[in-house]
Amino acid sequence: MPGPATYFDPARSGELDPRTRDLVERRQRVLGPAYRLFYEHPLELVRGQGTSVWDSDGVEYLDAYNNVPSVGHSHPRVVAAMAAQAATLNTHTRYLHEPTIRYAEDLLGTLPAQVGTVMFTCTGSEANDLALRIAKHATGATGVIVTSNAYHGVTTEIAAISPSLGGAESVADAVRLVPVGPSASTSLERGVREAIASLAAAGIRPAALIVDTIFASDGVLPDVAGFAGAVEAVRAAGGLFIADEVQPGFGRLGTGLWGFDRYGVVPDLVTVGKPMGNGQPIAAVLARPELLEDFGRSVRYFNTFGGSSVSIAAAQATLDVVRDEGLIANAAGVGGRLLASLVELAGRHEVVGEPRGVGLFIGVPLVDSATTLTVVNALRERRVLLSASGPGNDVLKIRPPLCFSDGDAARLVGALDAALAGV
Amino acid sequence: MPGPATYFDPARSGELDPRTRDLVERRQRVLGPAYRLFYEHPLELVRGQGTSVWDSDGVEYLDAYNNVPSVGHSHPRVVAAMAAQAATLNTHTRYLHEPTIRYAEDLLGTLPAQVGTVMFTCTGSEANDLALRIAKHATGATGVIVTSNAYHGVTTEIAAISPSLGGAESVADAVRLVPVGPSASTSLERGVREAIASLAAAGIRPAALIVDTIFASDGVLPDVAGFAGAVEAVRAAGGLFIADEVQPGFGRLGTGLWGFDRYGVVPDLVTVGKPMGNGQPIAAVLARPELLEDFGRSVRYFNTFGGSSVSIAAAQATLDVVRDEGLIANAAGVGGRLLASLVELAGRHEVVGEPRGVGLFIGVPLVDSATTLTVVNALRERRVLLSASGPGNDVLKIRPPLCFSDGDAARLVGALDAALAGV
Repeated sequence: MPGPATYFDPARSGELDPRTRDLVERRQRVLGPAYRLFYEHPLELVRGQGTSVWDSDGVEYLDAYNNVPSVGHSHPRVVAAMAAQAATLNTHTRYLHEPTIRYAEDLLGTLPAQVGTVMFTCTGSEANDLALRIAKHATGATGVIVTSNAYHGVTTEIAAISPSLGGAESVADAVRLVPVGPSASTSLERGVREAIASLAAAGIRPAALIVDTIFASDGVLPDVAGFAGAVEAVRAAGGLFIADEVQPGFGRLGTGLWGFDRYGVVPDLVTVGKPMGNGQPIAAVLARPELLEDFGRSVRYFNTFGGSSVSIAAAQATLDVVRDEGLIANAAGVGGRLLASLVELAGRHEVVGEPRGVGLFIGVPLVDSATTLTVVNALRERRVLLSASGPGNDVLKIRPPLCFSDGDAARLVGALDAALAGV
Repeated sequence: MPGPATYFDPARSGELDPRTRDLVERRQRVLGPAYRLFYEHPLELVRGQGTSVWDSDGVEYLDAYNNVPSVGHSHPRVVAAMAAQAATLNTHTRYLHEPTIRYAEDLLGTLPAQVGTVMFTCTGSEANDLALRIAKHATGATGVIVTSNAYHGVTTEIAAISPSLGGAESVADAVRLVPVGPSASTSLERGVREAIASLAAAGIRPAALIVDTIFASDGVLPDVAGFAGAVEAVRAAGGLFIADEVQPGFGRLGTGLWGFDRYGVVPDLVTVGKPMGNGQPIAAVLARPELLEDFGRSVRYFNTFGGSSVSIAAAQATLDVVRDEGLIANAAGVGGRLLASLVELAGRHEVVGEPRGVGLFIGVPLVDSATTLTVVNALRERRVLLSASGPGNDVLKIRPPLCFSDGDAARLVGALDAALAGV
């Protein structure tokens, strides 16, 4: 999640134009203080197509941030699939529905053979909640190891393993945090071994190591040292490895569909979500079947909307488009060239650190969070949308729809260059 | 949730026709043992319209069970609203979106003025998880009081307050169960006072009393004694009252939109879900604003798909249809006449107890769960879909789309009469 600095400050609503101020005030009244808006000047979006979105004045923006509409805003094949299914039937998984089975087979075919079962939910939070519940059930253990600025979701159970949320509720007693960073000197394996020892000293066995395989909230880290060793270490201690693919999954990294593949490991559980249905609320837990044997017998789990007909139709269309339009290769190609341009740009601006990333998930560290805030808002004024990430909230997060073109990338780099010239 | 007896037994897949057997086996392989199918002979649904659904052989069934498609399967206004919004924009609540604000205002306008804020989620489970988290945060307490066969959802936190799920995980230490029943001698207030005393003896203060206001999993109980007194008692002990309207809400009871209204109480938090978007995954927590003041400031909550554009469009269209088609009055009228017919039928069949219900939420107790199982499956063979409920799994649960007609009701009663003649 982006840090607070990238949000609108309600105390400054007097600076807004009348329509925006009215909307902000109405919204504040009915949605309350937990809801936040992006940008110093909040954006009212009314339309999207491909990598473009339009505000209520008809102004077009380049979307370099939203990973949910991963095959592009309002993709006609996804829209058509949803509309057709909604007009035909939209029901749950206690009736047989061939497209649900076919999609499950299709999805599982993209994963290592050991990960042979899927359970559908509606959100990544629900998927991580269920995965952790399965891991605790299967191991009989309670310890959880996460990275030090991890974000895995917002259910009560998952908020308690999400230190990036801050606040008094985080982090639960049986949770241990391990540092990660862009430098090869920070080894995930070493951190995990220390976490296991710390849990053991408290009489706690690890149920799971769970990591976002692109480490988005830790600042976007494409090459974390000691990844495979960390997985081995948690297994040696009786725990499971959960790969959280909610952000990196479905082709964004340009190296196949899944982030864990890049580290040569096979997870025990995989969670997927955000881009799965291009905006339709669908997510899933994928698991080694043996982990579900006792869980499936003794725990009754049913998710009313999980894998419902329209959600499956959206997910199937999205996966088809990723393949048919070659979006993984596009993420690799455009993303690689964009990263090279950003490295070149970094050489010309003192406040920019070393850009890092893989495919269309790129982090650009800036000198501090104040500068990052300024740049994020300056880009919004220049009609390019992105946000910030990282424990210090000082990393530009670039995470556009996967149909991002070289032209889009050039526009982003040009706008960033100009924004940086203004700080 | 219906009990296990109403599900297909995978050991009997040899009895199925080849296509169904093939689907069941493929499904079992990819979805695993946690997934269950309704009926001795699972049903493959391919189409739905109004109160009718069709199987893959083109056979039509009367749907007297599914509360999610509450304004009718594939309602054209909901389908059109979803399709139009999906083709335009589908994004999240960190941009301004006037229809989201308008729907929030519309929805809150149906509730008592004290309940002035809404937070959107995707599922009833997420809504109850969030409501309980808010209640614990606001009270600083941890105790939870639920009914003895309650079902509130499937996140880790909420499964632990859902005794109807059974299994080793239920029920958490700080949870107390109170009995409810159709008889006026079982007072919810007395049970809640005893639960508060039991918590106090363990040094635990109550954070919340949470009840489904139609007590669906407790067997469908339209008139529970001591309801308002129970709410008073938990407040006197410093706790909050959460009305779980996920099943009864949005007009099903025929007495306005909300079940708590029937008891003359104003909840601190209200959770809504299932029928909210006629199948689209949308749910919400509605709260007294003061409960969110500190929570909203100190806890960062964001639900990516919660209140996303397409979900809001579906929810607005659904609420509009409930009003424009007079579905609350229809639920009252058709439901009332259906209940009267069922009472008449009960007089002619020894195995039938006293039918109870309000609007289009009706429970018909039978002599035991074996008879109930037989009747549920016999009705499926007679092309009428319903299921079972209650702690003993011996109550027929009748919960059709709200556009159920008197003709539909007559068909249901006729089929039930014939099915009962066969037991």
